[in-house]
Amino acid sequence: MLEKINKPNDIHKIALADFPLLAEEIRQFLIESVSRTGGHLASNLGAVELTLALHNVLDLPQDRIIWDVGHQAYTHKILTGRKDGFAKLRQEGGMSGFPKRKESDCDAFDAGHSSNSISAGLGYVRARDLLGQNYRVVSVIGDGALTGGMAYEAMNNAAGLKTNFIIVLNDNNMSISKNVGGMSSYLSALRTAESYTGMKINVTKTLKKVPKIGPAIVDTMRKTKSSIKQLIIPGMLFENMGITYLGPVDGHNMRQMMRLFNEAKRVEGPVIVHVLTEKGRGYTPACVHPDRFHGTGPFDIKTGKSLSAKKSLTYTDVFSDTVTALGKEQKKLVCITAAMREGTGLKRFAKEFPDRFFDVGIAEEHAVSFAAGLALGGMIPVVAIYSSFLQRAVDQIVHDVCMQNLHVIFAIDRAGLVGADGETHQGCFDLSYLTMIPNMTVMAPKNAWELSKMLEFSAYMAGPCAIRYPRGGAYQGLEEFQSPVQYGKSEILYRGEKTAILSVGSMTEVCEQVYREMKAKGENPTFVNARFVKPLDTGLLDELAKDHSLFVTVEENVKSGGFGEHVAVYMEACHPETRVLPIAIWNRFVEHGEVDSLRAKIGLSPAEIFSAIENELEEEKTAEDGYKEQK
Amino acid sequence: MLEKINKPNDIHKIALADFPLLAEEIRQFLIESVSRTGGHLASNLGAVELTLALHNVLDLPQDRIIWDVGHQAYTHKILTGRKDGFAKLRQEGGMSGFPKRKESDCDAFDAGHSSNSISAGLGYVRARDLLGQNYRVVSVIGDGALTGGMAYEAMNNAAGLKTNFIIVLNDNNMSISKNVGGMSSYLSALRTAESYTGMKINVTKTLKKVPKIGPAIVDTMRKTKSSIKQLIIPGMLFENMGITYLGPVDGHNMRQMMRLFNEAKRVEGPVIVHVLTEKGRGYTPACVHPDRFHGTGPFDIKTGKSLSAKKSLTYTDVFSDTVTALGKEQKKLVCITAAMREGTGLKRFAKEFPDRFFDVGIAEEHAVSFAAGLALGGMIPVVAIYSSFLQRAVDQIVHDVCMQNLHVIFAIDRAGLVGADGETHQGCFDLSYLTMIPNMTVMAPKNAWELSKMLEFSAYMAGPCAIRYPRGGAYQGLEEFQSPVQYGKSEILYRGEKTAILSVGSMTEVCEQVYREMKAKGENPTFVNARFVKPLDTGLLDELAKDHSLFVTVEENVKSGGFGEHVAVYMEACHPETRVLPIAIWNRFVEHGEVDSLRAKIGLSPAEIFSAIENELEEEKTAEDGYKEQK
Repeated sequence: MLEKINKPNDIHKIALADFPLLAEEIRQFLIESVSRTGGHLASNLGAVELTLALHNVLDLPQDRIIWDVGHQAYTHKILTGRKDGFAKLRQEGGMSGFPKRKESDCDAFDAGHSSNSISAGLGYVRARDLLGQNYRVVSVIGDGALTGGMAYEAMNNAAGLKTNFIIVLNDNNMSISKNVGGMSSYLSALRTAESYTGMKINVTKTLKKVPKIGPAIVDTMRKTKSSIKQLIIPGMLFENMGITYLGPVDGHNMRQMMRLFNEAKRVEGPVIVHVLTEKGRGYTPACVHPDRFHGTGPFDIKTGKSLSAKKSLTYTDVFSDTVTALGKEQKKLVCITAAMREGTGLKRFAKEFPDRFFDVGIAEEHAVSFAAGLALGGMIPVVAIYSSFLQRAVDQIVHDVCMQNLHVIFAIDRAGLVGADGETHQGCFDLSYLTMIPNMTVMAPKNAWELSKMLEFSAYMAGPCAIRYPRGGAYQGLEEFQSPVQYGKSEILYRGEKTAILSVGSMTEVCEQVYREMKAKGENPTFVNARFVKPLDTGLLDELAKDHSLFVTVEENVKSGGFGEHVAVYMEACHPETRVLPIAIWNRFVEHGEVDSLRAKIGLSPAEIFSAIENELEEEKTAEDGYKEQK
Repeated sequence: MLEKINKPNDIHKIALADFPLLAEEIRQFLIESVSRTGGHLASNLGAVELTLALHNVLDLPQDRIIWDVGHQAYTHKILTGRKDGFAKLRQEGGMSGFPKRKESDCDAFDAGHSSNSISAGLGYVRARDLLGQNYRVVSVIGDGALTGGMAYEAMNNAAGLKTNFIIVLNDNNMSISKNVGGMSSYLSALRTAESYTGMKINVTKTLKKVPKIGPAIVDTMRKTKSSIKQLIIPGMLFENMGITYLGPVDGHNMRQMMRLFNEAKRVEGPVIVHVLTEKGRGYTPACVHPDRFHGTGPFDIKTGKSLSAKKSLTYTDVFSDTVTALGKEQKKLVCITAAMREGTGLKRFAKEFPDRFFDVGIAEEHAVSFAAGLALGGMIPVVAIYSSFLQRAVDQIVHDVCMQNLHVIFAIDRAGLVGADGETHQGCFDLSYLTMIPNMTVMAPKNAWELSKMLEFSAYMAGPCAIRYPRGGAYQGLEEFQSPVQYGKSEILYRGEKTAILSVGSMTEVCEQVYREMKAKGENPTFVNARFVKPLDTGLLDELAKDHSLFVTVEENVKSGGFGEHVAVYMEACHPETRVLPIAIWNRFVEHGEVDSLRAKIGLSPAEIFSAIENELEEEKTAEDGYKEQK
């Protein structure tokens, strides 16, 4: 069957009776493929029939499907001629793990972050209507993504719409972790009301037939007063907001789903189709551990066991250990995650201190202002959010935390390049958007030991502070350098002369190699671990300016607004005779690939940094020689 | 009566029978006071009884009230001993128009931006419970603020709470403009169901008595199938999310409100009290024009007419005229506002092109991703959001607009200092958070003519771009300079030598005076209107470097990540012999006051800039002399 699927709409040629077989083949293909390359598995296994049913009732690329987050779009990729792309899934130059418009005209919207698909879909709908076109727009959103506020903003805005807009709620009762919150409980209640399914198919027709029953019901309800409010009437929450609700329907029953989708196409207005799916469906290990198989490396299909080399200690592990230890001694410490209990390393803290752990759902904005309230109430909140997701809460950091100068600690994992997830997930802006904010302190550790010490330090300082550290293995080197963390002070690793390398966090490991190469070449540079990006250690800059003609700053962040610019401006003002070479990510988004390879590509590998410094020194020398000759 | 109110809790000494008189006196005080100083009037007049009732059932500062946005907190200020502060309301050194913790320990949370009060309140609640304290926490949120997604994120997160947390929904059926969206329609429906009010008072007790009626009702409902979903059962939407709903109640009936608040205090969990208020209550002109009296300058009490001098043309007016004209010629242009139809100047566009105008509610995140969808659907969206509110959508600009390189135009009003609204509303970060993003173009106009030309330019360019302009009068000077706007090109106003002033947008008007003073002193500086902050006009920088030893950059934005840093880094790399003096807002929040006075305070007035330049030149001269002497 799968061989017959080579381009968009090939699915229309498949007989309905053959769909179960096709679904089975796709599942096998996905399991085998992801077992080799790694990737998002559980969410994709859950969405096979859902995707088949959608493709069957739609006409692509004319119709638009907007996948929220996008880690459920593998079947969509197969159905739109990208089966072969799975061989190099998420590899540099290979196929992205997320929908990408440049890969296929069947990808209507690039995805990665959560909860934006209804907004994007509504934009398409309004454009379609204004231009007098008549394609279908379908936003597919998970129940996890529905905890994000912007999904609600979009539903609120869609309510007045008079033309068709289909929202498919792919409800697997999970985000990456187990789902939380009032909406989740509500959806669970709807799940158990499955007996409604059959009855609801013809909802729009039925509605027109029974208008007169209304008043009698109202009367009954008045008599029972408020008890009625405890009942679950399917979809009432959405209907109250002005969105027609259809469902719930079994997301692994093609026939039922297609009937409901076709019904949804007839609604003149926004309509939500509630589809119940099982994360990991068809592969037992993924059903049993949907979180572990959300994103996975290569694994053994029979056992489900990871084939990756045993993982070394990660920065996430270090954060996990330290924050748990801190929780023991500092009883006011509380931790907050936005649906990333495992990813952020808070699982242990949550287990040891369940009362002091808060998973607020995919709700970064709320997470930060909630922390502000906790701080004012007397607690010390640690907000653990990945760098690229924290972009969602910039205003809350400015307005609710920093303006009130509250002691909130931001533990920012996945800062810098993250690799296979690509441009939507690279954490390349945090140094810029955090250092621009008054009252904020920003740190980055050179190795495992230092992350631990910075966390301890942050727990006992005042005011807001952020610690950013990268995805993956925690550097164990440079362990002989253990000077205490002091507010605003950098750490001199090696004191030399003429050239000073000032590295931020993750780049210290990289620059250690650069330092070694320079030494090998007979040079004697100074090597400084910046530690603090805000405030700058201007005392050290002053001192180094005395016997250094070149400062090289190295950071895994965009240049604009980063460490290098701050140092350059300071030096420009106070020590114009010292040149500054800022090495950072230039004005570009960075795609998916191996971190080391990406670093080389954008000038952040040891070799690239080394040659950038040598070029600069060469130029300086040339300029000097020229000057001498002139003289 | 008002004389008896001098400190927190003095209200407990007032007899209930005297409350109407007290409310009347407060209203008179507010009307008279604001008629002299200007301020937020309509929302405050609507919240008089609500505030009295709250203060009466609470014990401050022990109990915490968190005012969402905060422009309804004047009565709260009166009741907490700040009556005298109204003489200098919103003036430099005087009382803020918003709750401020440093003004009073009865202000539990600094406010300004919308929709965060439930998050902050929930933080207090969790801290209270963890610390074993037992004060009350009350978040007061407007129906407008309820369109913001983070309010929903917070409600979703509050749902599981087992202890008391009171959310007062102050429903006046408006944000600043008329309210929009599904939630608004829903609340309107609840408003008309006022007959429920009396019956709902004892909801929690009643609930326990009638559990057995449930099944019968379910049966009836099944029979009537989906028609039931069209009925409005008060508060069902909130109840479905796990929040007890009480109301609606008349927000001008103290006795009813107090009964309901006392009832709410007995709920073991989150409870929303739906209070219906009238914006502008008690002052006819404010009832008739609640939008005009939302924020007002001094006015004549009898007529309601403004006493401010006739306003000159504002940048908002220029935007309004130009975008409407553009809308006529470019049929694909659509405009989006986040509940700021009047403030952003989109009222005229909305009137002329109602189909191409979208007010999405207080929902900046959705606004931006909605625009991304519109752009992909073939339209040219203009997103008009104030600088400080656009901070809410940084991730959406990065992830949904710039990563896909979509042609979305951001019209950013209130960039730079805004004056009386103070630190929460100053637009001092946009140049930093926008220029850090790849693919983004950032412009700022020197005067009215240029804003208009930049808008025209932006409508026909590709990719995302932003135009930022300040609050208030549009500069009409420098009108002899009308070179066409060209991508990435600055405009040389006066070509001189040695010193070059490079000013961004609003600072060009200010720097014109600096330029004149320098000329008067016999100097001959170059004066450049930067126009583009991103990309930098490096060609011009190269050229000027030839015969200038000092560049002075001037911008109304924080230094970190702003124009000055970008120029300094470029010059450092390419022309180290030219010094750069970056004049910007240093690492601080700027409080309320007159814009000119604030600028003087932070070094952005003509006199301050002039003396900074002269100091720098003096230092340079001294250094030069020293060098000559050494030689």
